[in-house]
Amino acid sequence: MHREQRDRAHDYLRTKGIDRALFASPYTVTWLTGFAPPVQVGPSPFAGGPSLVWYEGGQFTLIVLDSQAEAAGQCGCPVISYQGYTIEEPIAGADHLADALRAAGGTPVAGVHKGRLGVEARHLPTFLSSLLHGMMPSDVEWVSIDGWLDPFRAVKTAEELAVLRENFALTDIGHAAARQAMRQGAGRREIDIWATVQSAIEQSAGQRVPLGNDCVVNRRPANIGGWPLNLELRPGDSLIVDLGTRLHGYWSDSCATYYVSEPSEPQAAMHRTAARALEFAISLIKPGVIAKEIDRQVRQFIVDAGHPVYPHHTGHGVGVSPHEEPRLVPYNDWRLEAGMVIMLEPGIYLPGEAAVRLEDAVLVTADGAEILTQHDKSLPRR
Amino acid sequence: MHREQRDRAHDYLRTKGIDRALFASPYTVTWLTGFAPPVQVGPSPFAGGPSLVWYEGGQFTLIVLDSQAEAAGQCGCPVISYQGYTIEEPIAGADHLADALRAAGGTPVAGVHKGRLGVEARHLPTFLSSLLHGMMPSDVEWVSIDGWLDPFRAVKTAEELAVLRENFALTDIGHAAARQAMRQGAGRREIDIWATVQSAIEQSAGQRVPLGNDCVVNRRPANIGGWPLNLELRPGDSLIVDLGTRLHGYWSDSCATYYVSEPSEPQAAMHRTAARALEFAISLIKPGVIAKEIDRQVRQFIVDAGHPVYPHHTGHGVGVSPHEEPRLVPYNDWRLEAGMVIMLEPGIYLPGEAAVRLEDAVLVTADGAEILTQHDKSLPRR
Repeated sequence: MHREQRDRAHDYLRTKGIDRALFASPYTVTWLTGFAPPVQVGPSPFAGGPSLVWYEGGQFTLIVLDSQAEAAGQCGCPVISYQGYTIEEPIAGADHLADALRAAGGTPVAGVHKGRLGVEARHLPTFLSSLLHGMMPSDVEWVSIDGWLDPFRAVKTAEELAVLRENFALTDIGHAAARQAMRQGAGRREIDIWATVQSAIEQSAGQRVPLGNDCVVNRRPANIGGWPLNLELRPGDSLIVDLGTRLHGYWSDSCATYYVSEPSEPQAAMHRTAARALEFAISLIKPGVIAKEIDRQVRQFIVDAGHPVYPHHTGHGVGVSPHEEPRLVPYNDWRLEAGMVIMLEPGIYLPGEAAVRLEDAVLVTADGAEILTQHDKSLPRR
Repeated sequence: MHREQRDRAHDYLRTKGIDRALFASPYTVTWLTGFAPPVQVGPSPFAGGPSLVWYEGGQFTLIVLDSQAEAAGQCGCPVISYQGYTIEEPIAGADHLADALRAAGGTPVAGVHKGRLGVEARHLPTFLSSLLHGMMPSDVEWVSIDGWLDPFRAVKTAEELAVLRENFALTDIGHAAARQAMRQGAGRREIDIWATVQSAIEQSAGQRVPLGNDCVVNRRPANIGGWPLNLELRPGDSLIVDLGTRLHGYWSDSCATYYVSEPSEPQAAMHRTAARALEFAISLIKPGVIAKEIDRQVRQFIVDAGHPVYPHHTGHGVGVSPHEEPRLVPYNDWRLEAGMVIMLEPGIYLPGEAAVRLEDAVLVTADGAEILTQHDKSLPRR
């Protein structure tokens, strides 16, 4: 898995004169290897630190907790695992992780190993950088390489696209469940709708699936987003359901707005405007277009329709991170390229009163866009 | 919140001559402040690093991402929040986190600020320790304080006990849902039972709740634990359901074993032995008892009943971590004290064939144990 990513990273690191590198960002580690440890209950209490990738001699070595070794083994690169849980002695994951890093880095030979060492300093724990200092000769040049590989993530490989397509199908299932649940929405709560959606997604996937993003009733003072709460739905209410699932380490995203009863005319008008804004946004997508230009035009579309402009991005990339480049925001000069996967999500919000957001994912193609999300975003039929 | 914890930490740090300290372990941060950021979808892509606690002049300052400032504000100590998400400029959480740490640490005055600086080096990202090096005078003595506060976590405060009681009631609800779902278990899958349990827990809590631990059918080759999969339950199967929920930053735990149809006589015999082993384990709990002695006696109970001994711990503490001291394992000389909350979970496993585990939580009282879990662990009535 992810051979292509490692080849591209290797080429780039060579260009920059980096001989060895230690990656510690969970996004980088997943992008380089395809390995994505579970997140739902936080880090394992038995782990000594984050999963790492050690780069040396053109080879990438994945370092993981022993309980994750089987999953990590699918990456197609060398894997070193270290002891976490044991009943034989005190838990010492950090010590064992340090040993694993020593084993991966080998013993530097004086005069041979000098050069440039790249480190993701924003994610590497201090005790491991201290260890590295001891392992490397003093004449090695340390280079912070945080974010260096991020731009490569924007254009997806065929392998990544297959995973993303499978994942967007999951959010489609979540939305079908939400729409169905909202048919008897009155008296149910945000958390009830969410539980139904989560169950539908995990039962469809046949496994646990990390799930974001929003489930908020229009009456909330901040009705743009947030996690579901104990708030009861009443006739006349609308509900923004924004779903992001992580499958095989890659995030999907998608949003729709549902109604407890027949939407009022103002609600329906807002909904239709959001739908046209989304359609307009999709029409702008093609290689060469500049991110901030899409953002500007879609905002203008909302303003021209007589609504307040949404305070968030117009869209963003997705991949190993749920929000990555290209960000469709007012400052961004990124140029779209074929193979990018982009979320588009115009919305209209009247705080505490009314809210609508509709979101699709698109793949930038040679001459336009292919829509990857298939969920029903229409107003309920009368 | 957690005033008592900060007082104890302050006293201890003063004893050890630590003038200033930076805490970065999520467990320590939650224990010191009560603040527990959500974990279910992994770290926020807008965060610059972990939540931090800066200790100086006897005061603890919590440093969090701006979107978490409201939740953090309940801690009762000073909070500094830093910018994460914005559409005005590129996401620069790490830079803003660094600024926040600079603001918390102030400007050291030469000759005044020297002393001993404690750092949780296993969790502090390298870029922040580099920053600290620049902030502090060169004659400051750096001390790794990883794990220093962990022993204090074992005895719970009244505030913590209230949260834990509320949380164990949540797993009780999860177990009631599992037992009910297993009445029509044949043809359903592990993931179906899990989805039912998860929904019941979150709907009862009125909010999203992180949920571990295990949901495994006896026919799995490794039938001790694991997350639910696409495995169908058949007549004659049993299912281990081990539930850990996190509420207000504190983990619960509890386990039961359910049956698709009427349990066979060998299954029922194993179940009864596990129940007696659990009862025996509870009877051993009182202040002064040594952890490894409980472990030894409960293992011996299983062996004496003619079953293979379980390969895991006999029990463990719970709190801000789902697995903490006192660990009831063969090497551990910890002595139980009143106020500790301990999981007890004897099991019997025949790989690929049969498996049973029953688990209760107990509070160590002045002269024994109070059972905190109320879930039904009995064999189904005939």
